[in-house]
Amino acid sequence: MSKQQNILIIGAGLCGSLLALRLGQRGFNVSVYEMRPDLRKVDISAGRSINLAFSNRGNKAMKLVGLEDKVKSLCIPMHGRMIHDEHGNTFQSNYSGRDHEYINSISRGDLNALLLNEAETHKNVNIYFNKKCKSVNFEKTTALFQDYETKDEFVEDADIIIATDGAGSTLRKSYYLGKKFLFSFSQEYLTHGYKELSILPKENGGFKVHKNVLHIWPRGSFMLIALPNLDGSFTVTLFLSYDEGEYNFNNLTTEERVLEFFRKEFPDALALMPNLVEDFFENPTAPLGTVKCSPWHYKGNTLLMGDAAHAIVPFYGQGMNASFEDVVVFDNVLDQHEGNWETVFREYEKTRKIDTDAIADLAIDNFHEMKDHVANPIFQEKRKLEMALEKEFPDEYSSKYSLVTFNENIGYREAMLKGRAQDKAILNMLTDKDIEVKGDLKRILDKVKQETEAILEDDRIAGLKH
Amino acid sequence: MSKQQNILIIGAGLCGSLLALRLGQRGFNVSVYEMRPDLRKVDISAGRSINLAFSNRGNKAMKLVGLEDKVKSLCIPMHGRMIHDEHGNTFQSNYSGRDHEYINSISRGDLNALLLNEAETHKNVNIYFNKKCKSVNFEKTTALFQDYETKDEFVEDADIIIATDGAGSTLRKSYYLGKKFLFSFSQEYLTHGYKELSILPKENGGFKVHKNVLHIWPRGSFMLIALPNLDGSFTVTLFLSYDEGEYNFNNLTTEERVLEFFRKEFPDALALMPNLVEDFFENPTAPLGTVKCSPWHYKGNTLLMGDAAHAIVPFYGQGMNASFEDVVVFDNVLDQHEGNWETVFREYEKTRKIDTDAIADLAIDNFHEMKDHVANPIFQEKRKLEMALEKEFPDEYSSKYSLVTFNENIGYREAMLKGRAQDKAILNMLTDKDIEVKGDLKRILDKVKQETEAILEDDRIAGLKH
Repeated sequence: MSKQQNILIIGAGLCGSLLALRLGQRGFNVSVYEMRPDLRKVDISAGRSINLAFSNRGNKAMKLVGLEDKVKSLCIPMHGRMIHDEHGNTFQSNYSGRDHEYINSISRGDLNALLLNEAETHKNVNIYFNKKCKSVNFEKTTALFQDYETKDEFVEDADIIIATDGAGSTLRKSYYLGKKFLFSFSQEYLTHGYKELSILPKENGGFKVHKNVLHIWPRGSFMLIALPNLDGSFTVTLFLSYDEGEYNFNNLTTEERVLEFFRKEFPDALALMPNLVEDFFENPTAPLGTVKCSPWHYKGNTLLMGDAAHAIVPFYGQGMNASFEDVVVFDNVLDQHEGNWETVFREYEKTRKIDTDAIADLAIDNFHEMKDHVANPIFQEKRKLEMALEKEFPDEYSSKYSLVTFNENIGYREAMLKGRAQDKAILNMLTDKDIEVKGDLKRILDKVKQETEAILEDDRIAGLKH
Repeated sequence: MSKQQNILIIGAGLCGSLLALRLGQRGFNVSVYEMRPDLRKVDISAGRSINLAFSNRGNKAMKLVGLEDKVKSLCIPMHGRMIHDEHGNTFQSNYSGRDHEYINSISRGDLNALLLNEAETHKNVNIYFNKKCKSVNFEKTTALFQDYETKDEFVEDADIIIATDGAGSTLRKSYYLGKKFLFSFSQEYLTHGYKELSILPKENGGFKVHKNVLHIWPRGSFMLIALPNLDGSFTVTLFLSYDEGEYNFNNLTTEERVLEFFRKEFPDALALMPNLVEDFFENPTAPLGTVKCSPWHYKGNTLLMGDAAHAIVPFYGQGMNASFEDVVVFDNVLDQHEGNWETVFREYEKTRKIDTDAIADLAIDNFHEMKDHVANPIFQEKRKLEMALEKEFPDEYSSKYSLVTFNENIGYREAMLKGRAQDKAILNMLTDKDIEVKGDLKRILDKVKQETEAILEDDRIAGLKH
């Protein structure tokens, strides 16, 4: 394959700009078309999540492209969840019993800008903004764009097209509407939507609450979370049903009702948010959806990657990490099969899809865990026990959360199967009093391992796949 | 609510004609628009499955509308599966250990004609053919139709619209494309497609092979099945991958290859099918898809029912039975909430969707079971044991298959949860030699019950839902 092959990337978000950088490093001619203006010049944060949780799988991609150190300077470590109850009491629940395992709050815009800057240092990478993709002809490997400013439409031709244009992907829509092949597709919405709010910095620029945690106000059927930003502010997100329960997005229509809701449910948060009402009515309410599809590619012509192929809900903090990991897996498949795009695309999907399906399901599990289980006594006991096991046996035990978040060399699917079996083992043994939090840890570790293996084996015999 | 309310039904297939009949019996003004010609006057069987498996859930609906006896005369009982191995050896595996439990082969066309005839006996029911629905305005409760013959388009208004227009539903498409509300939707295709073939009757009109069974040639990654028809023929269906394995639909392109495939894999079937090649190249290859969506209704205006709301793959023989059960459940909700369509539609979906989701998943499980597990020794042992338990303890034990097929007063979801737990219990106990097929049946029954309960309890504690 000639390195002079032309690759067209649709979308210069986090996945597209990382992919452009990596393919540029590999020597391809890369053209990226992005529908939004250049975020390094124009503030376009409105309506999108402002900060994200960055962890090991994302960092593995940063190592691949040589950006680990630069990204580190953008990160605020979060060592655990700071749980706020109805009375304003707090307690911290760490993400791991190992001190070096934590997640990071990072600005979407800063990270995207870094990747765009790095990509553009390669002469063979060109990025064009304000060009909206209207459709893709996946049989001819061409894409139709419209320039936002001039309104002119133009067609771009390429050897291959990779769409990293997010949950509302135009290429995916072209696959669906084209009906040229059997296209499996799902979009599943939660009953809940989300709205971003904020806790502003202190007047001196400091943080109003503890900086190095993910704050969470779990309330059973809804919740509030807050992640720190480098400027001392927190981005706060309310996850709430559209139409169920006493308070919901559909009936929080007046200042009075919004304040009443926060006074009742989140009094300590409200005290930090004098700007609540303004934020609430200025910012949009957005849906929470999961997208899965297959095939991701059409022959050796076009490929979906990142959210375009597998949009997930945000509750595992893995959306961006999964998209970055896509690029690592793709790069690895390229090492093996470069020269035959159809094989590359097929092998990539075959290798990758079982893992992105798994993280989609795990993220929905965590929706329930975060709003509900973190405040449930038996789940809290499990969590305590797992922290103790991870601390005492750092090389022998990892919780489901650790497997998913901190073990970048284990796929999401393997992490899910093992993690769910461990959870089931521990919850059942705690309930049956086979183990207790204050018991001998070595004995508990052995019992958990044994019971986890038995659960996995029983499922294998029954031919169960979950 | 005035009984003079106008109900528009889109689609006069099995579900639509049954619904029209039932709503006609309840006194509503019912108009049904069907895109095909009247199947009582024109043969339109091409490309659709010619016969179906009819069982208890479907029969419950026939009882509701007073047609149990008339339908019975259309039925050919099938007491079990007749399994054909590669060498032409056969053995029969019954569907139940209880003699009165069996399924029936029935002609789709004959059953549909009966329902149309019965519906038209009601003056308040009118059925129009050759009228294709092009779109539904679910906010105004109107539907746009086109007459096939005159090509004229016209709009029909109604108090409510119910779409029973199958897996490719126009109303569902209008929900999806309308983007007026969050619409969760999935279409999932199997890697396999199907093609209908036939075994013709003997010259004297008799059956060439045993009539009262479902014949099956399981071959691991593909299979052939045959269901009897009243005229002495069998409708044969080949389930095969589109593009995987040595033989697949994409590479079975010549007479020679088709014959070679059948000679090698299905020699005894081939001997009964001198018309194989002709059938193979005349009949279409069709995909196997599952459709799920939510919400099924828009306010109190429009509702999806039958395959339009939940298309499933055919491997549990439950597609038509599930659609008929929809009408029974809907009728029951009408008894409770008639007078408020929005409440009727909401309660109907809330009651029904968990069960149609379950049968969709069970049908996919059975795809693997039929082509693969029926020839697997441990699954055969399980099956033998379950037959013995059902025979010995008819009131105390029902297999998953029996729960799904013969227990119409248990919902699909409950049948799935209990049935899967039983399967897991038996397969694991057989593997661990905790029980054996020749053991004491009472002891085995007790162990199976106990272990099933333990599995369900463990899942409940772990918060698992499958």
